[in-house]
Amino acid sequence: MDAEQQGRQRPLIALAMGDPAGISTELATRLVASARVREAARLVVIGDRRMLDAGAAVAGLATAVPSVAIEEIGNADTGPALIDLGNLDPADITPGEASLAGGRFAVENFTLALRLAKAGRVDGVCYTPFNKKAMRYAHPGYDDESRFITGLLRLDDGGVREFNVLQQIWNARVTSHIPLKDVSAALSEEVILREIARTESCLRLAGIEKPRILVAGLNPHAGDGGSFGMEEIEIIAPAIEAARARGHDVAGPFPADTVFVKALKEGHHAVLTMYHDQGQIAMKLMGFDRGVTMLGGLSFPVCTPAHGTAYDIAGQGIANPLAGEEAVLLAARMAASTATERRPQ
Amino acid sequence: MDAEQQGRQRPLIALAMGDPAGISTELATRLVASARVREAARLVVIGDRRMLDAGAAVAGLATAVPSVAIEEIGNADTGPALIDLGNLDPADITPGEASLAGGRFAVENFTLALRLAKAGRVDGVCYTPFNKKAMRYAHPGYDDESRFITGLLRLDDGGVREFNVLQQIWNARVTSHIPLKDVSAALSEEVILREIARTESCLRLAGIEKPRILVAGLNPHAGDGGSFGMEEIEIIAPAIEAARARGHDVAGPFPADTVFVKALKEGHHAVLTMYHDQGQIAMKLMGFDRGVTMLGGLSFPVCTPAHGTAYDIAGQGIANPLAGEEAVLLAARMAASTATERRPQ
Repeated sequence: MDAEQQGRQRPLIALAMGDPAGISTELATRLVASARVREAARLVVIGDRRMLDAGAAVAGLATAVPSVAIEEIGNADTGPALIDLGNLDPADITPGEASLAGGRFAVENFTLALRLAKAGRVDGVCYTPFNKKAMRYAHPGYDDESRFITGLLRLDDGGVREFNVLQQIWNARVTSHIPLKDVSAALSEEVILREIARTESCLRLAGIEKPRILVAGLNPHAGDGGSFGMEEIEIIAPAIEAARARGHDVAGPFPADTVFVKALKEGHHAVLTMYHDQGQIAMKLMGFDRGVTMLGGLSFPVCTPAHGTAYDIAGQGIANPLAGEEAVLLAARMAASTATERRPQ
Repeated sequence: MDAEQQGRQRPLIALAMGDPAGISTELATRLVASARVREAARLVVIGDRRMLDAGAAVAGLATAVPSVAIEEIGNADTGPALIDLGNLDPADITPGEASLAGGRFAVENFTLALRLAKAGRVDGVCYTPFNKKAMRYAHPGYDDESRFITGLLRLDDGGVREFNVLQQIWNARVTSHIPLKDVSAALSEEVILREIARTESCLRLAGIEKPRILVAGLNPHAGDGGSFGMEEIEIIAPAIEAARARGHDVAGPFPADTVFVKALKEGHHAVLTMYHDQGQIAMKLMGFDRGVTMLGGLSFPVCTPAHGTAYDIAGQGIANPLAGEEAVLLAARMAASTATERRPQ
């Protein structure tokens, strides 16, 4: 098997360049240069060559990245390539400042990456961090990546779900960016059951053969037998029972304040939480800034490092690429599994 | 100054023996024997001599604890003493099993300790862990210690507040054991302002001269400018502003998933959270089982180790007294400050 054939077996991952005013551009260069990334994936960077060169200068890396036409993705050699949209001049960006130009750049790159993946031209999507303010300048009404994808690809609402991934544990959530007072009304046996199934499916794609999942309750002490809320008894426990009946290895509902401690101690693979902060408080304390955010529920994986744009260290050449590397590695692993699943048995 | 005079300056702390089926009795003996505890406080154990002797046998400690009549508390020598209520025969308890007898024992001891403190006969109250099931056998409708005290001492509801204390950080909360869906409606500028003031007051009593407090938001990303909930804008921020106008060193509202990370990094003394799990998830991951629960808002401190009754290691002689010691030390420190505050200037 020659090098090119080997290369063809590694998944093609589109890397959309994110917000240009922080570390995103430096990070894109570092990912291109990473040996771990090269071993796992063929990276197709989407953005502007001038920005990628600027990132290389900041990182102090001299990485040759040939341009590739969209029609030729996957036909090129086995190294990384760039789809040069010529869509941002570094002179138009002030480091550390959210701008319309920066937001447009990120939105355009991400949009193309998603469309290529949707069309089966690449196997997965990664992106370096976005700045929400800049995204809103460019795309009014922008809430988060999940809703952006849902709108762009015209999916059902709820079709895309965010997972937070640390090496030792995954966090999935039933509700996300909604007011806390609306969480209870958004829960049902059906949606919890669906999220359990989706979580298990994503864990399998990521290479975990027999996923073991814990489910959090909603109320203090998981309601304490109905003393502080009935959702555990009326909704969450029945959903877990139904999931077990379908063969899922899932247990709960457990009090939110010990479920992560329990999962770590007992080696479960994921915790499904009922709302955003229930999981995020725990994950961030466990070092989630070194983790990966994965958007699941699509026919391809979408991954990004969990940390932000880090405007405060823009241009300093000290961005740590570890979480970004993990994002590409996870996308590559899941893309390979997805391809296997698609293949006729 | 002779030893007795020195002894009189150390606060009198009532130690109510907790649930007898776990480690509570062993722990009481270990606290009686602790040099750190003896230096900080004069301990008045409340319970049954037979149980205390049984605890000593488990712990392998030979500690002489003279009995004292209620009328003579504080007149005795400087060592620990026991108020022997003769209210439980060890033969009536099965280790590891919650029972009515065990619950009655804990409720009686705790009740006397609180009444003595209310009457000014002791300066503070500690207790070894309770078992909620046993407490409910003995006291139907028992929810938690705060509500028990509120009922017993006929206080206003909301008069007693639970604080969770780790060495590096305190956690106070605006709401506690209520359904999550009711949290939003329970928030008001007034109650948040009151809790900020109460938190600051408790921190001062504990010896922190200039308390610096962070306040969590309610919604994901603290509402993200109103996108995911309005409580931050309409209630929490105005409360913080009002508190600052009154001279409190307080800031927020910050997203719940980073407020603890921020507080630790920047050396703030406390985080005020809006609901139970917002703080408990973080505190438990930070090792709160080694921490202390303090019930504030009374004229005397009430402290207990944050860990539970540990039914699984009952009778093994391996109970770790560190958190219990911290509980007594905190109660002693706060009792001494309270006494100073009471003293005419």
